[in-house]
Amino acid sequence: MKTRAAVAFEAKQPLEIVELDLEGPKDGEVLVEIMATGICHTDAYTLDGLDSEGLFPSVLGHEGAGVVREVGKGVTSVKPGDHVIPLYTPECRQCKSCLSGKTNLCTAIRATQGKGVMPDGTSRFSYKGQPIYHYMGCSTFSNFTVLPEIAVAKIREDAPFNTSCYVGCGVTTGVGAVTNTAKVQAGDNIIVFGLGGIGLNVLQAARMVGANKIIGVDINNDKEEWGRKFGMTDFVNPRELDGDVVEELVRLTDGGADFTFDCTGNTVVMRQALEACHRGWGVSVVIGVAEAGKEISTRPFQLVTGRVWKGTAFGGAKGRTDVPKIVDWYMNGKIEIDSMITHQLKLDDINKAFDLMHEGKSIRSVVVY
Amino acid sequence: MKTRAAVAFEAKQPLEIVELDLEGPKDGEVLVEIMATGICHTDAYTLDGLDSEGLFPSVLGHEGAGVVREVGKGVTSVKPGDHVIPLYTPECRQCKSCLSGKTNLCTAIRATQGKGVMPDGTSRFSYKGQPIYHYMGCSTFSNFTVLPEIAVAKIREDAPFNTSCYVGCGVTTGVGAVTNTAKVQAGDNIIVFGLGGIGLNVLQAARMVGANKIIGVDINNDKEEWGRKFGMTDFVNPRELDGDVVEELVRLTDGGADFTFDCTGNTVVMRQALEACHRGWGVSVVIGVAEAGKEISTRPFQLVTGRVWKGTAFGGAKGRTDVPKIVDWYMNGKIEIDSMITHQLKLDDINKAFDLMHEGKSIRSVVVY
Repeated sequence: MKTRAAVAFEAKQPLEIVELDLEGPKDGEVLVEIMATGICHTDAYTLDGLDSEGLFPSVLGHEGAGVVREVGKGVTSVKPGDHVIPLYTPECRQCKSCLSGKTNLCTAIRATQGKGVMPDGTSRFSYKGQPIYHYMGCSTFSNFTVLPEIAVAKIREDAPFNTSCYVGCGVTTGVGAVTNTAKVQAGDNIIVFGLGGIGLNVLQAARMVGANKIIGVDINNDKEEWGRKFGMTDFVNPRELDGDVVEELVRLTDGGADFTFDCTGNTVVMRQALEACHRGWGVSVVIGVAEAGKEISTRPFQLVTGRVWKGTAFGGAKGRTDVPKIVDWYMNGKIEIDSMITHQLKLDDINKAFDLMHEGKSIRSVVVY
Repeated sequence: MKTRAAVAFEAKQPLEIVELDLEGPKDGEVLVEIMATGICHTDAYTLDGLDSEGLFPSVLGHEGAGVVREVGKGVTSVKPGDHVIPLYTPECRQCKSCLSGKTNLCTAIRATQGKGVMPDGTSRFSYKGQPIYHYMGCSTFSNFTVLPEIAVAKIREDAPFNTSCYVGCGVTTGVGAVTNTAKVQAGDNIIVFGLGGIGLNVLQAARMVGANKIIGVDINNDKEEWGRKFGMTDFVNPRELDGDVVEELVRLTDGGADFTFDCTGNTVVMRQALEACHRGWGVSVVIGVAEAGKEISTRPFQLVTGRVWKGTAFGGAKGRTDVPKIVDWYMNGKIEIDSMITHQLKLDDINKAFDLMHEGKSIRSVVVY
């Protein structure tokens, strides 16, 4: 079949909208019509050539929502017509990681996914006879895409595609960091470093679970208004402080936060996030992705006196299990998404979404097919 | 009253055995006759002048066992005749830390303890009219010492002093790191870096709770025999490997350990310990105390892919609650102590214990009064 797609033919070049050939689903695979897709920093990171493992030509995009149109042999968990969110972190429920019950980092198809191909080692996309790579196992910048059955989460049918697609990455990453990784409880004090899309989702999840102080830290004062919309109780701009930001945060939280979240990807900020934790029990969660080669460091005394340093990927969410729950939370009004979708575009205008992101003008831009 | 004590008059000098004046217990304090005391690396660290906050002249020692001889006004939890272990980490059961239920790092008397005095701001020890500082709130290198009531753990009376004193620091630090901080479970794979006294106690606690692979790592082959006595199943000497020690450990544990423990104080080893953890859930616990100014570092990717970096002090043990339990475990044969007490000396010979430790010839030396 044919599909319209935005193809990254090479790094640092705009995406090109072309018609690709798409092979139908093989055994254990499903064909999904993507109805909407978010444009995420990770897509830009790859397109900008910063990911040393980025492959070209490829169909980027990993934050989609759509409808199953066809299933391959052996597929039992979804059927044509089901509404689904593609999962860049699949959930096979069979591998050592899934069975451990201790992590969402399913390893079933990690090797082939990293190579831009389906589990059988081949791509379903081609252009003029040449294969085009898949991206993060999703490739949602194509109107139709093929995914392994274990990499789609079935969601309720009344959830709008143009907002619930954001659950495919940003929402789940921020909300899940609070509910799955940190397991924040009512009354806890939390600090969020970096009030982009992920940070806002951390804020609103902390509000949902009844956190006490919900402190946002950003060097851009324009973020304060955004933060307050999503539950932030206090705002700190480190550039406007006379003293040290960690000292100020420890003061604001009477000894340090129960949980801190780095949503900046800046390794200096990651250290501040750890050190702003309460002695004895504070836990700092790294969400942001650091530049290649950058390292985090601290005095071991910080750990010996009870602070814990951990991280999260895809919000610690098991895709097929947790993503539908987060969509429910959205539909039930426990979390907001609509106001975060600042821009809605057509596929032909997808490069504008990257510009808006680079200019810091969007929380989330979504392409609607 | 008078007490014989080994006094550290200044850094880098041998201790001097002298008779000190000792004031009796004030309100909320107890007088303890120390029957035995271990000599720990931390005492040597201070005596060697490496602790920038070390105070002189002082009575060192923090790993003792003895008998309550007198109690001050208001003391209700112990009475004369009770056998006790002094606690450098007290347990007041009233402060924010104690009440949190999430840490053993009681803050009730932290400020005065750090200044070498009792909670009322004065010392009970003096020599020729000049005050002598307390050390870590314990000062067990004195035949008699005064402690706050919240800083003694009442233990069973059939526990020998000359072995159970080791529970006052080393045993609890190693065993508690496994049972309180890591909460190792049956079937877990663990790795211990550094097979000194603390490392051996980590090993035997892992054996007690039914760990699967219990791997010891040390650059001294003589430690292998010691390790195997305490439950070690595999020994790795990094200096005898062709390849990278982390790779070898990940191979031995089929993907990395569930828990790793640094008992070296070396920040390079601390990083190896983190990176030898299993992707998705491995937890590394820093036990060793690093040199002043040294920092730990790693790529944040290690955390984002599910490894957790934490630390422990006094094995995460709440002194009055957990220390008596560990003495029970010893008396019931769940853990061993006797064979670790490699040297037993008189107070007059205490400087020999420091020599033995510096020369690496003892696991634990104990002074018996």
